[in-house]
Amino acid sequence: MMNKNTFALTPPMGWNSYDYYDTAVTEADVRRNADAMHEKLQRFGYEYVVVDISWYVKHAAALRPEGIQYTPFDELAMDEYGRLLPDPNRFPSSRGGAGFKPLAGYIHSLGLKFGIHIMRGIPRAAAQNHMKVKGAALTADRVADPASICPWNPDMYGVRNCPEGQAYYDSIIELYASWGVDFIKCDDICDSRLYGENFSGWHETEMLRKAIDRCGRPIVLSLSPGPAHIDRASFYQKNANMWRITDDFWDNWKLLKPMFRRCEMWQDHVKEGCFPDCDMLPVGRIGKVFGEERMTRFTRDEQRTMMALWCLFRSPLMIGAELSLLDEETEKLLANEALLSCLKQSAHGEQLLLDETAAVWKNEDRVTGEIRIGLFNLSDEEQEISISKEEISETLTGAETLKELFGEEDNCFENGRLHASVPGHGVRVYRI
Amino acid sequence: MMNKNTFALTPPMGWNSYDYYDTAVTEADVRRNADAMHEKLQRFGYEYVVVDISWYVKHAAALRPEGIQYTPFDELAMDEYGRLLPDPNRFPSSRGGAGFKPLAGYIHSLGLKFGIHIMRGIPRAAAQNHMKVKGAALTADRVADPASICPWNPDMYGVRNCPEGQAYYDSIIELYASWGVDFIKCDDICDSRLYGENFSGWHETEMLRKAIDRCGRPIVLSLSPGPAHIDRASFYQKNANMWRITDDFWDNWKLLKPMFRRCEMWQDHVKEGCFPDCDMLPVGRIGKVFGEERMTRFTRDEQRTMMALWCLFRSPLMIGAELSLLDEETEKLLANEALLSCLKQSAHGEQLLLDETAAVWKNEDRVTGEIRIGLFNLSDEEQEISISKEEISETLTGAETLKELFGEEDNCFENGRLHASVPGHGVRVYRI
Amino acid sequence: MMNKNTFALTPPMGWNSYDYYDTAVTEADVRRNADAMHEKLQRFGYEYVVVDISWYVKHAAALRPEGIQYTPFDELAMDEYGRLLPDPNRFPSSRGGAGFKPLAGYIHSLGLKFGIHIMRGIPRAAAQNHMKVKGAALTADRVADPASICPWNPDMYGVRNCPEGQAYYDSIIELYASWGVDFIKCDDICDSRLYGENFSGWHETEMLRKAIDRCGRPIVLSLSPGPAHIDRASFYQKNANMWRITDDFWDNWKLLKPMFRRCEMWQDHVKEGCFPDCDMLPVGRIGKVFGEERMTRFTRDEQRTMMALWCLFRSPLMIGAELSLLDEETEKLLANEALLSCLKQSAHGEQLLLDETAAVWKNEDRVTGEIRIGLFNLSDEEQEISISKEEISETLTGAETLKELFGEEDNCFENGRLHASVPGHGVRVYRI
Amino acid sequence: MMNKNTFALTPPMGWNSYDYYDTAVTEADVRRNADAMHEKLQRFGYEYVVVDISWYVKHAAALRPEGIQYTPFDELAMDEYGRLLPDPNRFPSSRGGAGFKPLAGYIHSLGLKFGIHIMRGIPRAAAQNHMKVKGAALTADRVADPASICPWNPDMYGVRNCPEGQAYYDSIIELYASWGVDFIKCDDICDSRLYGENFSGWHETEMLRKAIDRCGRPIVLSLSPGPAHIDRASFYQKNANMWRITDDFWDNWKLLKPMFRRCEMWQDHVKEGCFPDCDMLPVGRIGKVFGEERMTRFTRDEQRTMMALWCLFRSPLMIGAELSLLDEETEKLLANEALLSCLKQSAHGEQLLLDETAAVWKNEDRVTGEIRIGLFNLSDEEQEISISKEEISETLTGAETLKELFGEEDNCFENGRLHASVPGHGVRVYRI
Repeated sequence: MMNKNTFALTPPMGWNSYDYYDTAVTEADVRRNADAMHEKLQRFGYEYVVVDISWYVKHAAALRPEGIQYTPFDELAMDEYGRLLPDPNRFPSSRGGAGFKPLAGYIHSLGLKFGIHIMRGIPRAAAQNHMKVKGAALTADRVADPASICPWNPDMYGVRNCPEGQAYYDSIIELYASWGVDFIKCDDICDSRLYGENFSGWHETEMLRKAIDRCGRPIVLSLSPGPAHIDRASFYQKNANMWRITDDFWDNWKLLKPMFRRCEMWQDHVKEGCFPDCDMLPVGRIGKVFGEERMTRFTRDEQRTMMALWCLFRSPLMIGAELSLLDEETEKLLANEALLSCLKQSAHGEQLLLDETAAVWKNEDRVTGEIRIGLFNLSDEEQEISISKEEISETLTGAETLKELFGEEDNCFENGRLHASVPGHGVRVYRI
Repeated sequence: MMNKNTFALTPPMGWNSYDYYDTAVTEADVRRNADAMHEKLQRFGYEYVVVDISWYVKHAAALRPEGIQYTPFDELAMDEYGRLLPDPNRFPSSRGGAGFKPLAGYIHSLGLKFGIHIMRGIPRAAAQNHMKVKGAALTADRVADPASICPWNPDMYGVRNCPEGQAYYDSIIELYASWGVDFIKCDDICDSRLYGENFSGWHETEMLRKAIDRCGRPIVLSLSPGPAHIDRASFYQKNANMWRITDDFWDNWKLLKPMFRRCEMWQDHVKEGCFPDCDMLPVGRIGKVFGEERMTRFTRDEQRTMMALWCLFRSPLMIGAELSLLDEETEKLLANEALLSCLKQSAHGEQLLLDETAAVWKNEDRVTGEIRIGLFNLSDEEQEISISKEEISETLTGAETLKELFGEEDNCFENGRLHASVPGHGVRVYRI
Repeated sequence: MMNKNTFALTPPMGWNSYDYYDTAVTEADVRRNADAMHEKLQRFGYEYVVVDISWYVKHAAALRPEGIQYTPFDELAMDEYGRLLPDPNRFPSSRGGAGFKPLAGYIHSLGLKFGIHIMRGIPRAAAQNHMKVKGAALTADRVADPASICPWNPDMYGVRNCPEGQAYYDSIIELYASWGVDFIKCDDICDSRLYGENFSGWHETEMLRKAIDRCGRPIVLSLSPGPAHIDRASFYQKNANMWRITDDFWDNWKLLKPMFRRCEMWQDHVKEGCFPDCDMLPVGRIGKVFGEERMTRFTRDEQRTMMALWCLFRSPLMIGAELSLLDEETEKLLANEALLSCLKQSAHGEQLLLDETAAVWKNEDRVTGEIRIGLFNLSDEEQEISISKEEISETLTGAETLKELFGEEDNCFENGRLHASVPGHGVRVYRI
Repeated sequence: MMNKNTFALTPPMGWNSYDYYDTAVTEADVRRNADAMHEKLQRFGYEYVVVDISWYVKHAAALRPEGIQYTPFDELAMDEYGRLLPDPNRFPSSRGGAGFKPLAGYIHSLGLKFGIHIMRGIPRAAAQNHMKVKGAALTADRVADPASICPWNPDMYGVRNCPEGQAYYDSIIELYASWGVDFIKCDDICDSRLYGENFSGWHETEMLRKAIDRCGRPIVLSLSPGPAHIDRASFYQKNANMWRITDDFWDNWKLLKPMFRRCEMWQDHVKEGCFPDCDMLPVGRIGKVFGEERMTRFTRDEQRTMMALWCLFRSPLMIGAELSLLDEETEKLLANEALLSCLKQSAHGEQLLLDETAAVWKNEDRVTGEIRIGLFNLSDEEQEISISKEEISETLTGAETLKELFGEEDNCFENGRLHASVPGHGVRVYRI
């Protein structure tokens, strides 16, 4: 049996279609972004190209003008076993039963990896029409749990906890593995606060784990939405490679500030193959199909704050920007090698301090001993942030020089303390 | 416009198929019970014959051996507008589009009234198949709310709060009125504690009210399940004729004892056209299709306690027993005219006392001045229950004679107090 | 035994010291307001003069500059049995053990009635010092429940549910009755949402009821703070004469608007001797000791809305203004005889309609048949409010003339509907 | 500044007076247990001798016959600054202002360490009597928060978050440090679920941390009761050395079984100086002052299960037994050196499996590579528990021999799996 922790020794990095394309991404869009990532970002560690929600929906986004994100009871592309297929209009290479195989093949040809989004469960249409389940004696109406729905997306029913349910999950993972899928982001499965006590997502997560372990392909498993429950941390560790510790994250300071507390809560659970996930980086050009195409609303300082926190904490890094439109400033932010070295297997992050106006993070390489310190200003106005060398490490002499990783002025200890004047919502990250 | 409070000036009385037939009742069963009611109980005020849940389901109860009450994604009888029709196999007279008209006609011919159970919402199958909605420009997939489901029954989706949703409710009430339906018990609509904050049952209740007011037929509206929310009492009063103040009630002392507190909570809300509902009387022969056919598990004393509480409080009285198998003892209980006079329009009930071991109820006819006093023993052993004449009424002299209404010994005041030795779980009801 | 419902056949009306004097009211203040009430308002039904919180505290309000309303562990005036006495500095006539007897006597001499505020429980100082409890074998340390405190006032501990606890309550009511107290507002006893499940206020309320019933004086019992729990309505009805249905009410539209829903929730529970209480009327000159002396912040229209709602619903009317500074406009508002007739024993209030922007109330005299209709505009801008004559009463002909009770233009039905253009936050009340 | 994590590099071990002596422990009892520990257990690592609750109460346990554990408003021994002192009747060596210094001295003379229990806050009596606070300008009535009480113990008020509050905490820690206290178990401070949102225990914990850091003595800080909140794990890590992850633990299987889930929840938070605490070991002779003197009700198998879980997880080990009455079997259990080596600084525990009937724990020494595996049978009947070598470690060959640490039969892998037949509620622990 494969050990799922070997599938992702460091936090997965890549691109996801959601922030720009919402439910309407096409094959051409995916290829264009894969090409851009290959050209500009692959050498820094970005490798996953992920097709997000609704790729199987035939009229996705068609009702958008009326404000509905997910068309209810839309026609879905699926095979005879109720397994979803790419919408052939948006993904032409999938025609004739090829599924995502050709697209995955193209992405693999660039040296990249291919990922897809799925919703927990089995299509409502499959249940209503009593479709066959591959490898099972029961039809979909008996495998589906009619009381287990997603509150915000109308496509699926939850799957009952029975052998035929496992057969269904085995059948879809078998299909997706045959296409060459390397990464699955399963949605509607992580935050059981949306649900009553008997949330079927708990056993469905275990079924997915089993199905992947059996399929022979090391598919990274990512769980959404969030926030995941800290009291079930070991459940996620046993079953998934990454899990969201926040609800959907966007370019809004009100969402960014609480991430400091969330990251501290999860910092002891960042391990090989186990990555609490801060969600996508809404940087660069985003929001098109949502009807709000824009450059990220984050200021430059806020972008640095986000990037620094994600790296010091060691979150997965999934880019939300349309990569073919990537501007130089954003590219530089994403390709900050000194900062990205926080993600190495030997590194570990820890929040040293958090109050209403400031936070200090430390990321230490346990092999090299290298330390990265982030001084964050969480208030709106410039202020001085400071910390003593003892709080950073008992082995510091105070004579060290500190290099700022975003190109700001370097620094040193004064009377045993590190001081920096940091702009509102901004950060200084020093390497010691 | 009709005034719905005139539809039921006193608490509705009748028979309901659920306690004996569960989801499997047939036309023959309904006729048999109507005949029995006509013969034995009609002259005491019982008049509604109500067909309970799943009359539109084609394989109802077929999966019962596996313990499933409601077959998921079963085939439902419906017309071109997604309006449910009786299963023609179980209700043969409905064939050819007649619906319940012939059965209702038969029941009317006996001088009785005809009622049906409905589930809140529009069939899931109608939404999945994009069926037409009568009188609306949108199809069922747009009228249905995919996130509004019943947690225990798989048949329906909730209806959105829009003109097309009202059109759907208008269309079903129009159909049911055309059949001659006199009483609708709408399920999955009353206890919003089963749901999140945005329970669509609130607006669906108002849509039902509007649809009935428009239909021209005085159809009594009964809401289930319970417990209804006391803080929304005036909502129920404005929109319904009766509403359940308890979850499903069965022949179990643990369910009967808490009814005293519930009734006290609702006693000020019993009014013309507005009846908080204690649920069916599980007496006589019940439980057949549930696989537990039996005589009620309530002792004779418990049956009297239930009947006395329902009457003194003025709850609707819906009999659960198969009436063709009605034994003499039960018939006598249900036909206690002296007790049934508590239900008169001029009467009002009030709990004078409640503690862990005893309760005292008073029901007073505001026109005749007649008073009924129930002394209930809520403990397991026989004990004396007592109350002073002042607590009953300031106008009593203490010289009154008190007739026991179940045929037990009559009584009188001693030193201004009424005492009675009452068996465990039992009651004495006196008329003053 | 006395019947507490005879103590207040109609909603109590009067003046309360809190809104102007907070914790610092003096004997001179009380006399001044009694005089003013006698002169201006007594003939309209106002009769209670109530001394609110902290009359027993020796340094009350001394710490106000630091923002503390209730000085912790302050010195309290009390007798040898731990029974609180008026602070002799603020209430000079109480010296020498006279208590409130002289002040009550003065108020009675004006034909008015005298009320005091008390906190639930027994003084913390009495418990700490093991003081005697009159008529009990245990000292205060054993009668007090050390885990039952008020979250916002430091003076008292709750009283245990035991005979010695009842003896304590008997002893204080005996004392207060001997002074001539006619009205007790007991605080920290009504809203158990402030507390855990085992709130001792439930049994303390019953102890107060018993103590008053035994004391021989018909003392009106008022419970605070709120909101009281609608599911325990009959508990309040059995034990108190009035109980708050809201938290502290002040001159703020955000507090006034929700009162419409609250009143509807409680409208069926307004009865002889039982009055759900909307709290004081913060009109005229208020706020002095709170450091915000002002004329009420309510606009004239908002004041009418409040006064109309309180009257149509039949709430107690307790004036918050310093009465010696009463302006003509406010006096006219409080002395609106036509509106005050809604409070008569034979009247009953009911909300006919409530939505986000409007409300309609009906108050009907069940003896004379006279109807009062209030059309409230809950929106910020002037708008037309309307209602059909059928919704008001089935017996109206539509030819009636409608007199506006605040002196605005009279009205009549047009095509069976009553229309009125009402200013934002305002009201029109018509007598039919 | 001292680093509190150096105060306890491994889980603290010792004896606590509570399980046998409740509120009534005396100096003689403490010395007797210290002597016994010195003789029998000190060489295995047990070193703390802890005096639990109510040592300052003058009539402690005097009211026990009436079922009250903590006498309300009892007389407390304290100095002029409201700092609690040992009751001189029970702790004679404390007379003349010596406090616990002589007793601590005796314990130190045995090479052991001395600990005391304290309640969060400042004595209610100090607040009521406006006592001085050492080093502060305000008296105790202003430092105490009258709304912050312990729900189950009547001695104290919480301390406000202000400099004078810090001064109070500094003053008590200074006193206790001067006595030679090495360990403080602070009660009523850990489980904020007992409280509302504004629980003052959060800032009082930080005040204690600061006071200890300033006092110059490395006093281990232990927080009670539990369960601590997993979402605040880093708060406890920053401020305390150990914190309870359970409510009071006693000799009852219903309490022991849920500890497996609790330990898994906290396993990633066991670190140098930071020990989630499973509470005392209720073994041997316990319960005397509770009126239920007995040998532990745990079976021998359950005792092993408890001891094994506490060790594999690396909980502190505090013995509840009266040590002078220690039987041979219990002594052997507590002195199992092979098992106790799980507590070493280099070891780490992890639950590999947990379901309704079984659990498997692994404890690995990261320096020596030695692995301990516990196979727990959580069901009532004997059954086989099994696990694969891959699940234990990827580096195992399968040829290893496995020594059972309680003296049961040794074992080996069969076809790559470890199997053991384990009695109900029992355990087998193997060293690999």
